[in-house]
Amino acid sequence: MSTKQSDAEKTSMDTLPAVVARPNKGGLEGIVAASTSISKVEGTIGRLIYRGYNIHDLARNATFEEIIHLLWFGNLPNRTELAHLHNRLAAERTLPEAVMPIIRLLPRNAEPMDVLRTATSAWGVTGASGTPDLEQAIAITARFPVFLAAFHRLRQGKEPLESRPELDHAANYLYLLTGNEPKPEHVKALNSYLVLLADHGMNASTFTGRVVASTGSDIASAVTAAIGSLKGPLHGGAPSKVLDMLEAIAKARNPEQWLRKAMARGERIMGFGHRVYKTTDPRAEELREMARVADAKSFALSHEVEETALSLLEEEKPGRKLYTNVEFYSAALLSSVGLPGDLFTPTFAVSRVAGWTAHVLEQVHNNRLIRPEADYTGPEEAKFVPIGER
Amino acid sequence: MSTKQSDAEKTSMDTLPAVVARPNKGGLEGIVAASTSISKVEGTIGRLIYRGYNIHDLARNATFEEIIHLLWFGNLPNRTELAHLHNRLAAERTLPEAVMPIIRLLPRNAEPMDVLRTATSAWGVTGASGTPDLEQAIAITARFPVFLAAFHRLRQGKEPLESRPELDHAANYLYLLTGNEPKPEHVKALNSYLVLLADHGMNASTFTGRVVASTGSDIASAVTAAIGSLKGPLHGGAPSKVLDMLEAIAKARNPEQWLRKAMARGERIMGFGHRVYKTTDPRAEELREMARVADAKSFALSHEVEETALSLLEEEKPGRKLYTNVEFYSAALLSSVGLPGDLFTPTFAVSRVAGWTAHVLEQVHNNRLIRPEADYTGPEEAKFVPIGER
Repeated sequence: MSTKQSDAEKTSMDTLPAVVARPNKGGLEGIVAASTSISKVEGTIGRLIYRGYNIHDLARNATFEEIIHLLWFGNLPNRTELAHLHNRLAAERTLPEAVMPIIRLLPRNAEPMDVLRTATSAWGVTGASGTPDLEQAIAITARFPVFLAAFHRLRQGKEPLESRPELDHAANYLYLLTGNEPKPEHVKALNSYLVLLADHGMNASTFTGRVVASTGSDIASAVTAAIGSLKGPLHGGAPSKVLDMLEAIAKARNPEQWLRKAMARGERIMGFGHRVYKTTDPRAEELREMARVADAKSFALSHEVEETALSLLEEEKPGRKLYTNVEFYSAALLSSVGLPGDLFTPTFAVSRVAGWTAHVLEQVHNNRLIRPEADYTGPEEAKFVPIGER
Repeated sequence: MSTKQSDAEKTSMDTLPAVVARPNKGGLEGIVAASTSISKVEGTIGRLIYRGYNIHDLARNATFEEIIHLLWFGNLPNRTELAHLHNRLAAERTLPEAVMPIIRLLPRNAEPMDVLRTATSAWGVTGASGTPDLEQAIAITARFPVFLAAFHRLRQGKEPLESRPELDHAANYLYLLTGNEPKPEHVKALNSYLVLLADHGMNASTFTGRVVASTGSDIASAVTAAIGSLKGPLHGGAPSKVLDMLEAIAKARNPEQWLRKAMARGERIMGFGHRVYKTTDPRAEELREMARVADAKSFALSHEVEETALSLLEEEKPGRKLYTNVEFYSAALLSSVGLPGDLFTPTFAVSRVAGWTAHVLEQVHNNRLIRPEADYTGPEEAKFVPIGER
């Protein structure tokens, strides 16, 4: 593109020997796409860290706003830093003038993920241009709950509410959705959920956002793209299907029989298996304990389904090592704080946008266009024939 | 996630040996991300083929609607097939009821790429869900010129126009923008431009769309993401900057002096260099010839700037092999058919959406989640400290 750019694209990796590799299983599995200091996923030992901190410690002891600080700035905040970040987020939690009329125009039966994607893109028209920066990361992270809650209120025939600046991110989201004072145990559970889901290495939506940012595009384009990627059921789009499954099993009253029949029909058992984890997902462990505390009765069913499904899956294909994934107990947890199923994936986005924006800022800090190769399998030579002779 | 899915994810590549490679230069350069039979880019010899057909033959002899057929169906259409495709596209070229009110709400000074991204996302709310299919590919490809021309008319204080079903894609786009009968030479030039830009291997926006589609997300999410990726100046966002440069040089009246000064200030010389091509880009060759025919006077300046820039770039860093890229003469060509600079990149999208949708359909046909790894460079162990002790 230019002299400047070509130089800027060079990194320390320029000196490594050229390796042209075909991904062993497709899907770029095992291929390093970028360096990051934000989070590390170790699938074989079931370990997840954010900037060195173990996810178990963070889920039990930190709020989501502390995690946002950790992901963006690299350190857990002291009280002054946290108050400062809280105030900056709270200042951006207004109903956005440019976007609200668009949310009002969308049909009431729209999928909330489509609403979030469209609202974020519309926000980008006036809210973000040029090189992604921290102000923009704060603005869009603050606005996700506002967009979603506004749509949720409108589809119930209610007016959207103004944010309450004294509430933290999780509490304000619950308040905006319901108009009620959020219960402390709901805030605590949602906070832990948001902490657990905030980042996860080079997952597909984060990678999507980094590819977009690597072209020099803006933060709204990157985050809009990431929302569309998270929506897919092979990534973040399936937790409400876990709930559907659990409800169907509860109705049928016999988990083992229900699961055996479903597997015999070749149906998916939702909430098991993950590309990276070859043992228990540490996030699923935390969510399981939270679900156990939140609602003993519904936990009893979830846990029976989990145990039964794992043993049937092992019976079906011994040694395949399918484990409970993060979606299984996400469904139980988000349901226990009062969210409807179609807000599960959008609420995943409320958390993950912290990671997306951290990755976008990291990508542009030391950028190189992400542009892989393709293996061409089409015809090598075709002689052009004018249309009259075809 | 499930038993079924894990099986479906297996491909023939499962049997290849595991290779974990770090990209040699970062940015996944030289890494094969997917197989495709749609197009092949050979950067060292300057060859580009769509499904076996050389881009030179296609640019000179085919219309964009023939290319759409070629990319989606794999063969150049006979007259019956082409008429059928034309009718299906024309039927979708209506002003979309659900999207027009949203385009009307966007500020008149919005960037057209942001408008296109938001309109496409809004279209997805009602126009596309589930697994991407051909009907949806036709619908969104047909609508790109409609969205853009509607916004362009509105920002001029004019009402959007209804499409004319007898016109082909290029001619109808020009008609929708201006309300005038498009000149045959403009239609021919724009057709060739649309043919040349329709696909280009695993470029960043196409790759973005495939990553999104690989999660099982919908076609609107994939195309919306691709628009945001194309917007970046390291990908499709720079051709209007070529025009700005040419206009500045025309004013200064001394191309060599202007270029030398710009390079001395460390500024980018727009329109040169490409990640893949290590020789002349075959698309730039075609565009150069078209620009030569379209407007002899402006071509004389463009060509002088090209020759001078290439010799100065070689003088600055001998042997670096920077060549004229597709953006350089895109600017001249799109300007000659009457498009304003801020519609250059959106018009690139009007072409590339044919490739994006072809790739999305190819991806879902034999899908595996695209989910690479990251190289973690952050701290390995950090002891959690409660906020009061930080």
